Amino acid sequence: MSEAAYIAVDWGTSSFRLWLIDRADGVLAERRSDEGMMAAARIGFATVLQSHLDAAGAADHLPVVICGMAGARQGWVEAGYIDTPADLTSILKHAVPVPKQSRDIRILPGIAQRDPRAPDVMRGEETQLLGALGVDGGALVCMPGTHSKWASVRGGTVERFTTFMTGELFSAISRETILSLAVANADEAVDSEAFQSAVTAAFEAPASAANLLFQVRSGQLLYGGSPASAREKISGTLIGLELAAGLAGDRPSGITLVASGRLGKMYQLAFDTLSVAVHCIDSDDAVRRGLASAASTIWTL
Amino acid sequence: MSEAAYIAVDWGTSSFRLWLIDRADGVLAERRSDEGMMAAARIGFATVLQSHLDAAGAADHLPVVICGMAGARQGWVEAGYIDTPADLTSILKHAVPVPKQSRDIRILPGIAQRDPRAPDVMRGEETQLLGALGVDGGALVCMPGTHSKWASVRGGTVERFTTFMTGELFSAISRETILSLAVANADEAVDSEAFQSAVTAAFEAPASAANLLFQVRSGQLLYGGSPASAREKISGTLIGLELAAGLAGDRPSGITLVASGRLGKMYQLAFDTLSVAVHCIDSDDAVRRGLASAASTIWTL
Repeated sequence: MSEAAYIAVDWGTSSFRLWLIDRADGVLAERRSDEGMMAAARIGFATVLQSHLDAAGAADHLPVVICGMAGARQGWVEAGYIDTPADLTSILKHAVPVPKQSRDIRILPGIAQRDPRAPDVMRGEETQLLGALGVDGGALVCMPGTHSKWASVRGGTVERFTTFMTGELFSAISRETILSLAVANADEAVDSEAFQSAVTAAFEAPASAANLLFQVRSGQLLYGGSPASAREKISGTLIGLELAAGLAGDRPSGITLVASGRLGKMYQLAFDTLSVAVHCIDSDDAVRRGLASAASTIWTL
Repeated sequence: MSEAAYIAVDWGTSSFRLWLIDRADGVLAERRSDEGMMAAARIGFATVLQSHLDAAGAADHLPVVICGMAGARQGWVEAGYIDTPADLTSILKHAVPVPKQSRDIRILPGIAQRDPRAPDVMRGEETQLLGALGVDGGALVCMPGTHSKWASVRGGTVERFTTFMTGELFSAISRETILSLAVANADEAVDSEAFQSAVTAAFEAPASAANLLFQVRSGQLLYGGSPASAREKISGTLIGLELAAGLAGDRPSGITLVASGRLGKMYQLAFDTLSVAVHCIDSDDAVRRGLASAASTIWTL
């Protein structure tokens, strides 16, 4: 087995992922948990990190590079923002050390768009962008999630970006509104037809979003339909709404979708439904490649 | 004091209102509580009603006419739907008696739009419409609330209607997403400027709704701003989105806004912001007039 060179951590709002990486950027061990920023703020960031380092069998001298919400004001150590237009390599140069630790731990900064008409912030996605596009790449990039980000990148510089609360809206609407009755006890069955119809309807009439959502309930009351189908309609409506805005402007050099798992499949299907070609990159690979760039810049491994 | 002739009840999802009414449709007593359908389904509908009848000093022989969610499948007794196009007077003729009660209690039916492309249902608003427009009125009517309804009425017939989950989305988004941090500890201060800007932004770019909502958070992170102002922005964004759809079609004979209290003021301000003239009718008065029509039809008081 090859020897570990550093630890890479993607520490989001609600998820924690850690990789033990060797000198050739190969993954030696992986840890995943739901101890994101919210949980870690209660438990203690150092405690959460150490428990996963122990479980991964990480040696005491290995340095750690972290991206994501651990660098937020409510996180472990505030890592600030690089302002747009933001050169992706500048992120690597502004990693903030976590003080009073027995090992070298650095947190990468986020990116801020200080435009009063479109204020926006990202933490973690800048590292995905770096990994997905490299230091001089360009594309319109869609990064789905709790807070989906669309970033316009040219020559390694993030020019503009836009956050959509799609994932979080899905969660709040499915659980905390009348639609919770429509999706109750839904199984995992995928209803692609319901999803695609909802994507198209919201894309074509985004102003009707709050009505299309209610139709999930009224349609079930009047015509029946499974809870799984209701869930797909809510999801399709919110993703269709996001795509209506994300695809409204110019589409410079094609669209890159950075996602993985079920979420990646759903967005891929949504783009297919609208006949929009996308280039897919796995988001786990992307964030790991971004963290590897950071590690090699910081420690010249 | 004049003698009570009947009891009128507006029993919504989350609110209960009862009026003791005399022969000239004058209000002798009023009761308001949050024992809506959801609470009453737990406590028992008969128990909730009786407690308010006792508190209002209603004599045992007085009949009760009820509109709203008490007639839903999950309510007290299912009162069915009249299908669109729905003559408002037909509602009066299809009140359903509550069986096994010591007094005469009737629940009014709702209206259903059985259109697979735009399925919709209302319960309670049909009674507001009757009270607001009379048996042969016409207008495009906006009835804001947890589930805002826009109804197109001509010659006393509800031709089409559309429900927007505006109020419920506001509630779920303010409490159950990252925006709960932005509105935490908000005072009652009204920030009309923030509200109006948000209405305009969402009206002009409805597809961006999920981004405009996130801007409430990112704007506060980058530029500060009060929790009350954040609340007004969320509210303005969701109302602006609703108005973008509600005002998209024809506007036949002017718009009638049926609302009351703070919600009425907000919608009035939203319409003003978009320079759309509206005729305002108090929703409490409207529903009471509708229930009075029902009472006089049912019991020829």
